[in-house]
Amino acid sequence: MTKPQAVTAAVVIIGNEILSGRTRDTNLPYLATELGKLGIRLAEARVIPDLEAEIVGAVNECRRRHDYVFTTGGIGPTHDDITSPSVAKAFGVALKRDARAVALLEGHYGPGQLNAARLRMTEIPAGASLIDNPVSLAPGFRLENVFVLAGVPEIMRAMFDGLKHQLLGGPPVISATVAAYLAEGTIAKGLGELQSRHAELDIGSYPFFRGGRFGASFVLRGTDPLLIEAAAVELRALIRDLGAEPLDREPA
Amino acid sequence: MTKPQAVTAAVVIIGNEILSGRTRDTNLPYLATELGKLGIRLAEARVIPDLEAEIVGAVNECRRRHDYVFTTGGIGPTHDDITSPSVAKAFGVALKRDARAVALLEGHYGPGQLNAARLRMTEIPAGASLIDNPVSLAPGFRLENVFVLAGVPEIMRAMFDGLKHQLLGGPPVISATVAAYLAEGTIAKGLGELQSRHAELDIGSYPFFRGGRFGASFVLRGTDPLLIEAAAVELRALIRDLGAEPLDREPA
Repeated sequence: MTKPQAVTAAVVIIGNEILSGRTRDTNLPYLATELGKLGIRLAEARVIPDLEAEIVGAVNECRRRHDYVFTTGGIGPTHDDITSPSVAKAFGVALKRDARAVALLEGHYGPGQLNAARLRMTEIPAGASLIDNPVSLAPGFRLENVFVLAGVPEIMRAMFDGLKHQLLGGPPVISATVAAYLAEGTIAKGLGELQSRHAELDIGSYPFFRGGRFGASFVLRGTDPLLIEAAAVELRALIRDLGAEPLDREPA
Repeated sequence: MTKPQAVTAAVVIIGNEILSGRTRDTNLPYLATELGKLGIRLAEARVIPDLEAEIVGAVNECRRRHDYVFTTGGIGPTHDDITSPSVAKAFGVALKRDARAVALLEGHYGPGQLNAARLRMTEIPAGASLIDNPVSLAPGFRLENVFVLAGVPEIMRAMFDGLKHQLLGGPPVISATVAAYLAEGTIAKGLGELQSRHAELDIGSYPFFRGGRFGASFVLRGTDPLLIEAAAVELRALIRDLGAEPLDREPA
C-alpha cells in the first residue's frame, strides 16, 4: 500500500520579534493543527526577518514547493510592515491602492482618520483577492497559492477561519498516541519493525522527562483509522512485552 | 553611524511533531534569547520534517549563509532519528562509530544495555567534536559551524550551556520597550520618522489587543544603551503628544 499524494503547505512567519525571542509564536501550532484537520500537511515553516530580500526569497521558494503558502505578520501600518510590497515583488506584480480595501477602512475609521499610514494597509498586489479581517478590518490577501495573513493571533485565526473553505485538502490526517515510561533505546528495535510493517503510517517517537523518569510518546499518523488502530494494538503489546504499561497519553 | 557587521545564526528545528502541531516548540525562543545575550543575532529559523533531503538542504543553505547553525532534534535511538547521518551527508563525510561516545554510553547504561539502537547514538560524522549531554549522556556534536543538539528542551539547554563558551559574538544586542494604548496607525508616521533619525537602531512595532482595546509595544534594539535611551525619550514624548501614556511594558 502506498501513501496517497499529500497536499502540502508551508508557513512563513515574518517578524524580527520572533527571531529576537521577544515574542513566542503561536500561529505555527495553530495553522499546523487546522491544516491537518483539512487534510493539508504542513511540510515546512520558516521564520524570517522583516527584510524584503528574505521575504521575496522565502515566498518564492515555498510557493514553488508546496500547494499552499501562508505568511503571517508585517501587514500593519508601521514602517516595519513590508510584507505586501515584498510579496508583490516576489510575484513581479505592481502594488496598487485597492478600492475595496479603502472602502473597508473608510467605514472603520472615523472621518479624517484614514491617514497615509493606514492607507498603506490598502496597498495590495495587483490581481490579489482580499481576505476578510473581521477584527480590525484591514484585509489580508490571496495571490495564487499564497495567503498573506496578519501576525496578531486573534486576527490571523479569524482570517484563516474565513478563508479555509477555499482550501482543497486530501484525506484528513489522524493520529493515535501511545505513551510509556520506557527508554527509547529499549523499544527502538521493535518500534522500527512496527514502522516497517506499517509503511502507510508515520510512526514518531518523542521522548519526555517527567518527575525524574524518562519515557516516550509514540504517535501513529495516517489517514485510515483502522490501520492506525491495528498498529496501536501491536504497539501496546510490544510495550507490555518490554515490561511497561501502555498509556493513552503523555503524562502531564 | 553604521551598524557593525552582525554575527548571525540560524536554527533548524527537525521534527514532524512540530509540523503536525502535536508539540509546541520552545527551543527557538530559548536559543533566540541566549544567542542575543552573546551578541549573536538569530537571523533565520526553519522547521523541517525528519527527511534526509530536507535536512541536507536546510543545513547546507544555512551553514553557508550564517556564522553559526544550531539544529535541534533527531539524534535519539529510534528509526525516525536521522539527523546525524543526514548532517554527515550534508558535509560529504562518513558517519563513524565514535569511541568517545561509546565510552560515555557504556558508563551510562548497565552491562548488556548498550544495544544496537543505542549504539546508533554513537555514530558521529567524521571530524566532529562532541557536545556534552549532562542529562542523558548521548552527545551532540559540532562540525565546523554547525552544532547538532537534542530536541528535548532540558537536554538542548544543558548542551547549549556547555558549548556557548565556543561562540564568538559581537556586542550584545539590548532593547528597550515602550508600550501604549495607541493605534499603530496613529503613531506610524512619527514612529517612522523616529526610525529614520535613529538608523543605528531597529525599531519594531507590535500591536496587541487587551481587554477589548488595541495598543502596541515599540521595541528599540541596538548595541549602545545611550542611543537606545535617547530614542526612548523621544518616543515617550511622541506618545504623550498623541494623547496617550507611555508604559514601560506591554500590559499583561
